[in-house]
Amino acid sequence: MIQTPMSGKIVREKITEMNLPSVGLASIRELNRIVNNIEKATTQKFIRMEMGIPGLDPPAIAVESEVEALKMGVGSKYPPFDGIPELKNEIARFIKKFMNIEVQPESCFPTVGSMQGCYMGLMVSARRKKGKDKILFIDPGFPVNKRQVKVIGLQSESFDIYEYRGEKLRLKLESYLEKGQFAALMYSNPNNPAWICFTEEELKIIGELATNYDTIVLEDLAYFGMDYRKNYGVPGEAPFIPTVARYTDNYILLISSSKSFSLAGQRIGMTAISQKLFTSEGDGLEDFFGSPVFGRAYIFGAMYALSSGVSHSAQHGLTGLLKAVNDGEFKFLEPVKEYADRARVMKRLFTENGFKIVYDMDDQEPIADGFYFTLSYPGFNGVQLVEELLFYGISAISLAITGSDRLEGIRACVSMTDASQFPVLEQRLKQFHQDHSSGFRAIDTY
Amino acid sequence: MIQTPMSGKIVREKITEMNLPSVGLASIRELNRIVNNIEKATTQKFIRMEMGIPGLDPPAIAVESEVEALKMGVGSKYPPFDGIPELKNEIARFIKKFMNIEVQPESCFPTVGSMQGCYMGLMVSARRKKGKDKILFIDPGFPVNKRQVKVIGLQSESFDIYEYRGEKLRLKLESYLEKGQFAALMYSNPNNPAWICFTEEELKIIGELATNYDTIVLEDLAYFGMDYRKNYGVPGEAPFIPTVARYTDNYILLISSSKSFSLAGQRIGMTAISQKLFTSEGDGLEDFFGSPVFGRAYIFGAMYALSSGVSHSAQHGLTGLLKAVNDGEFKFLEPVKEYADRARVMKRLFTENGFKIVYDMDDQEPIADGFYFTLSYPGFNGVQLVEELLFYGISAISLAITGSDRLEGIRACVSMTDASQFPVLEQRLKQFHQDHSSGFRAIDTY
Repeated sequence: MIQTPMSGKIVREKITEMNLPSVGLASIRELNRIVNNIEKATTQKFIRMEMGIPGLDPPAIAVESEVEALKMGVGSKYPPFDGIPELKNEIARFIKKFMNIEVQPESCFPTVGSMQGCYMGLMVSARRKKGKDKILFIDPGFPVNKRQVKVIGLQSESFDIYEYRGEKLRLKLESYLEKGQFAALMYSNPNNPAWICFTEEELKIIGELATNYDTIVLEDLAYFGMDYRKNYGVPGEAPFIPTVARYTDNYILLISSSKSFSLAGQRIGMTAISQKLFTSEGDGLEDFFGSPVFGRAYIFGAMYALSSGVSHSAQHGLTGLLKAVNDGEFKFLEPVKEYADRARVMKRLFTENGFKIVYDMDDQEPIADGFYFTLSYPGFNGVQLVEELLFYGISAISLAITGSDRLEGIRACVSMTDASQFPVLEQRLKQFHQDHSSGFRAIDTY
Repeated sequence: MIQTPMSGKIVREKITEMNLPSVGLASIRELNRIVNNIEKATTQKFIRMEMGIPGLDPPAIAVESEVEALKMGVGSKYPPFDGIPELKNEIARFIKKFMNIEVQPESCFPTVGSMQGCYMGLMVSARRKKGKDKILFIDPGFPVNKRQVKVIGLQSESFDIYEYRGEKLRLKLESYLEKGQFAALMYSNPNNPAWICFTEEELKIIGELATNYDTIVLEDLAYFGMDYRKNYGVPGEAPFIPTVARYTDNYILLISSSKSFSLAGQRIGMTAISQKLFTSEGDGLEDFFGSPVFGRAYIFGAMYALSSGVSHSAQHGLTGLLKAVNDGEFKFLEPVKEYADRARVMKRLFTENGFKIVYDMDDQEPIADGFYFTLSYPGFNGVQLVEELLFYGISAISLAITGSDRLEGIRACVSMTDASQFPVLEQRLKQFHQDHSSGFRAIDTY
């Protein structure tokens, strides 16, 4: 009789208690709760890979700058909706120094997390031109962006990039955009959940089509610069971070501070809009936002109404951090390189024990090690594999909830697992592979 | 030849430069810019009463609590969407101690300013029940709430309370609600711009009708407790702050930290929802927010999508402040009483010089002194009066942009004017009255 690392009886009990149609299709938050409940009941710890929670400390320079601003009394003064001038300047400098893209400080501003940046980007883009109001997602992607589309009340379509890498992307993308209904297309790069990165050739195709069909590209850079195959960390020096902004003026860049800067708690992200788009007009904007000018609609319509700006002290914190980064005094990609180091080991532990990486290539090149990777195991689809792994004390989410067509796959996040846990992970994976080589399936047993 | 305090030529020039259809109908932000431009060109200072910007320092306990949390490293950890448990508890305690209303901590949470609270309240309420999707404003009101309705894509109606005080409110309100289309009704209390406060009789009428017609009351308490006719400042002791929550379970309370707590910079407000509403279901919610349950739609739909919560350190700052307030250690209404003291003097200076208070009574009782008051002057409508006063170095906004029917009126905010400026104000008002007694009108002269 096989004993799984977590008591099969308890795991089944806790799954049943949640009363879900399918545990493998559970949302990240629901899965999180099940795992908490199993840990509590068994008093054993999981290898937790279901949530993309950054696990590092905030940079000292950000904390110090924010503390100083609080002591100066900024807490009682309304911040400008579009950010304090010093921060707007540093965001523009940051984009110049690490992406080699010129953006005006006027059209660079903080948002309440890049989450609010995505919401605003989707909302304002979809109302720019009458009749052009749908969103196209290049999947797989972050499920919450699709929730945002529904909250706003928009329609969307999507396709999985897996079969359309390189030049194949052009025809596929054009088959959507040529309908003329797409206000914007959205993707994350590096990609959540697959950690694929678009090649320059692919970004060029996206940019060209965005210009031709007047569709705005919402480029979600939630893992800014965290592709460690190249050294993107030296300000003002090549190589620069790949971006569609090199190939079109129809762009909105969405940069998170949560992962690259370990500032998830302060809810402060950055949005940068091309000058051409920022100063352009659209016939759908005035009814909603009180101005036909895109940038005015964004700031005095959307930002004013959503939250009237971002925490004043957090703006000073980010300003201090960005200044140090831009001046070359704080190498922001070095602490977070930890995630890539973990991924390298963890991917090896999985693949040595019968697992396969699902999204494994960027066109011709193997994908980078980073915050996430994707996995499959023979004889299981992703939904089953999520459930099966719970019995082995490992939690992840199914790719099915990310818009992926690769239904065999699951997403693993490395952020909550450090080197001290690798021996436990290895031992559990060895047992998993051994048990399953003999035809065992916990989900059919308990 | 009459010389106005500000050069007539320059004032006219700066008005013309802005190229507005009417300076008296300008938005607060536009007026703000004109005044800045006149101040720069004349090197003379205005008595600035156009903007409702709190002018006091943040409370030390809030600053200290936030600094401590930052030093503990909360900046890198995602906060829970619905707030840290300590803060949820203190918000519920605060509402119990100052309003004598029982709300569960579960349905009390921080928002990114009460601005986000209002946005969420409008958005989720309007989608609760299919076919019940309009908003009713009891005016006059904060113009940005009407912008929020447009940004969300909703329809609204409104009426001016002026002619419908006391029992007269019932029939008027019922004439709207009986149509069955109103998802929510909204008002601010104390009122921005008129500083009227609803009587208990009026709140009872609103509550009863809200229950009868299943319409949610969005009670905007942006100036929480700042009616100084009564002493609302002792925790756990009567008198308690008036609220519709005493008369219906269909309420959402929106409490700002900006004015009562002098925390405008940190963008952290509070929302409290009745337990009955929080746990209720609506047939319109799931499509937008992924759950038919009101509270789940609010937190895991709206809050997740809008900003995924509020600055982690600001939550600790507000927790520390509320704890001190609830324990009776920090008397939050004492520092902000300054606003009422100013209003008393400033109202006298205006009325001694020919001005009248427009909204002057709460049913049978004179209105309180507070953050705002309303004014008129014989021979001018409000739009003209805003423009005329610019020549006298005094800035205010027209009531016409607040939904008021009292088109003779303007709104004055006391927050940017301290006692040191009263002599200048008095001198300018004396000249204003003297000049106009002789039939002079700057707007016709320059």
